[in-house]
Amino acid sequence: MHPRTTDDPAIATDLVALRERIDAVLETFLAAKAREADKAQLPSDYVDALHSFVFTGGKRTRPLLCALGWFAAGGSERIPNAIVRAAASLEMYHAAVLIHNDIIGDTVLRHGHLPLHRAMSARYADRSDADGFGRHAAALLGNLALIWSDELLSTAHLTARQRAAAVSIVSTMRADVIYGQFLDLLATARSELALDEALRIIRYKVVAYTCERPLELGASLAGAPGETREALAVYARLLGEAFQLNRDLQGVLDDLRRGRRTVVIGLALQRADTPRQRELCRLLGDPTLDEDDAQRCRDILTATGAHAEVERMVAQRRDQALSALDRAPMPTPAVAALRLLAIRLTHARADSSAAV
Amino acid sequence: MHPRTTDDPAIATDLVALRERIDAVLETFLAAKAREADKAQLPSDYVDALHSFVFTGGKRTRPLLCALGWFAAGGSERIPNAIVRAAASLEMYHAAVLIHNDIIGDTVLRHGHLPLHRAMSARYADRSDADGFGRHAAALLGNLALIWSDELLSTAHLTARQRAAAVSIVSTMRADVIYGQFLDLLATARSELALDEALRIIRYKVVAYTCERPLELGASLAGAPGETREALAVYARLLGEAFQLNRDLQGVLDDLRRGRRTVVIGLALQRADTPRQRELCRLLGDPTLDEDDAQRCRDILTATGAHAEVERMVAQRRDQALSALDRAPMPTPAVAALRLLAIRLTHARADSSAAV
Repeated sequence: MHPRTTDDPAIATDLVALRERIDAVLETFLAAKAREADKAQLPSDYVDALHSFVFTGGKRTRPLLCALGWFAAGGSERIPNAIVRAAASLEMYHAAVLIHNDIIGDTVLRHGHLPLHRAMSARYADRSDADGFGRHAAALLGNLALIWSDELLSTAHLTARQRAAAVSIVSTMRADVIYGQFLDLLATARSELALDEALRIIRYKVVAYTCERPLELGASLAGAPGETREALAVYARLLGEAFQLNRDLQGVLDDLRRGRRTVVIGLALQRADTPRQRELCRLLGDPTLDEDDAQRCRDILTATGAHAEVERMVAQRRDQALSALDRAPMPTPAVAALRLLAIRLTHARADSSAAV
Repeated sequence: MHPRTTDDPAIATDLVALRERIDAVLETFLAAKAREADKAQLPSDYVDALHSFVFTGGKRTRPLLCALGWFAAGGSERIPNAIVRAAASLEMYHAAVLIHNDIIGDTVLRHGHLPLHRAMSARYADRSDADGFGRHAAALLGNLALIWSDELLSTAHLTARQRAAAVSIVSTMRADVIYGQFLDLLATARSELALDEALRIIRYKVVAYTCERPLELGASLAGAPGETREALAVYARLLGEAFQLNRDLQGVLDDLRRGRRTVVIGLALQRADTPRQRELCRLLGDPTLDEDDAQRCRDILTATGAHAEVERMVAQRRDQALSALDRAPMPTPAVAALRLLAIRLTHARADSSAAV
């Protein structure tokens, strides 16, 4: 692919071009960091490893929502460089979150590739401590991504008003996902997890972090009126829930292996008869589960009606999200792009392993 | 201890009062975060755990150097709130670095207390995965400290000029220590480590991060003239090297256990005869070493002259650091405070386990 340069225009409603523009910012930034490392005789292949991670998959959902929030809330359709850079900073932060998440969950594959900690272990396979080395080296690279997301935002040439708004929203967003990750850690060991607790984890780890805050950031940068901001917030919250519920439906096997009590698994446990409850509890948290187990589990999800119920929850939330866009005046092409994004993110055939 | 409030004045040369003022900023900030967590029904004891970590020991070296840099470079002796807050942000970042370092090195004790990951494991001892949980929960808390250090800085009400200077210096400082940690990880497995490579690790992990950048930050916030900045940079570099070399002398047993090739161990390996080399190599990286082994090692360091050589290196660097302060006009009380700090940080009886 021939990457765009940072001088190309970024039109809010051309999601492909917008994504390329965001990637160009990340590309240019990381290339400069690799050059600086080289110059200081630091291991620049360390920066390259982060580059590979950032550019292996990823839908750039958060930057896209940020850019669309800007346009929907009255910003120009041609998105200024400062706004694209602020949007791109969300993706760099997300890289840190994914890297750290993969270490915590000891992810085996991401997008069909090794997650960063396993890639680092493989690269230093001749070390006797290759596993631990890989985890530590990746954790540090995650920290680099974290501080660089901050540098991207701090150097985005925002106005003083925009900067104040961004600092507050981004601080909250960053803490939201960390709290969500911690709630998730706390919940993993619990044998019972109420449905509302599962939804609360989603609320912090996904809804606020993936949808609400990025859209709010873009809207605030544009100085959105309260009415628009409110409509976008409702859209974002419902979209975030629909997105995560849909992802849970696609990723049941992986969630079982990790012992994650998602909403669909929680519902199935509630509704199943005792033998099926026992079966599900047995499967939950066993990292060696195979495709046969997954099929048995899918059968239980179907038989208990949990699968259908969650499908219904997804559709309902998506429809409500789309309706929310009519609650405030927004440019028609912005609404169209937000509708398209919502449908893509909650599509039943979404690739569950794809990063968003 | 009765903590100061954020309204008390902070005089640059009263290091005790200045430290209390920095602590008051951290205290107020973390108390607000705990309240916010409570309000959102998030586990506020999670924030309390970070609070305990930040307030268990710690000399506040980086914030003190930042504040002294401000005063030495022409800033007011009564340090403005914005500058104290910027200085305090360095300590919050340092908390993140220490938390992550302790996980990587699996530190057993810090200041005679459990490091955060072990404290979290102990708090959740009833979990079957308490060890892993403690590491992951602490890593996430380190990330919170990291993003909150950024929030402290971003909300410090700096002027646009100060902010631009701070962003650049702090970005570099944050990356310096991560690169240093990575170089350290890379070096741990190597059977040979050249003296200049050991000094390079110190350069990134300690010298730049602990001394140079904090002092540079304060000086830049005050708009230091080039001459002053240069003199302070020389002081900071030499002080940082002296500080770390001195710490290596105090912490030999711990470094041996971790297999860290410090300058003093590297020198001893270079100078020792074959039997002593073998003995040192045998001790290096063995986590079960006891006080007898430590004594054998100290004997080798003495017999080879490595200990005396490093003591000489410490004294030489400290003296040169102090002389550098005469190279530019600075307020006499600022010079006195910087001299005092240099002597404290390189004192032969420095508590090697104390955080700095």
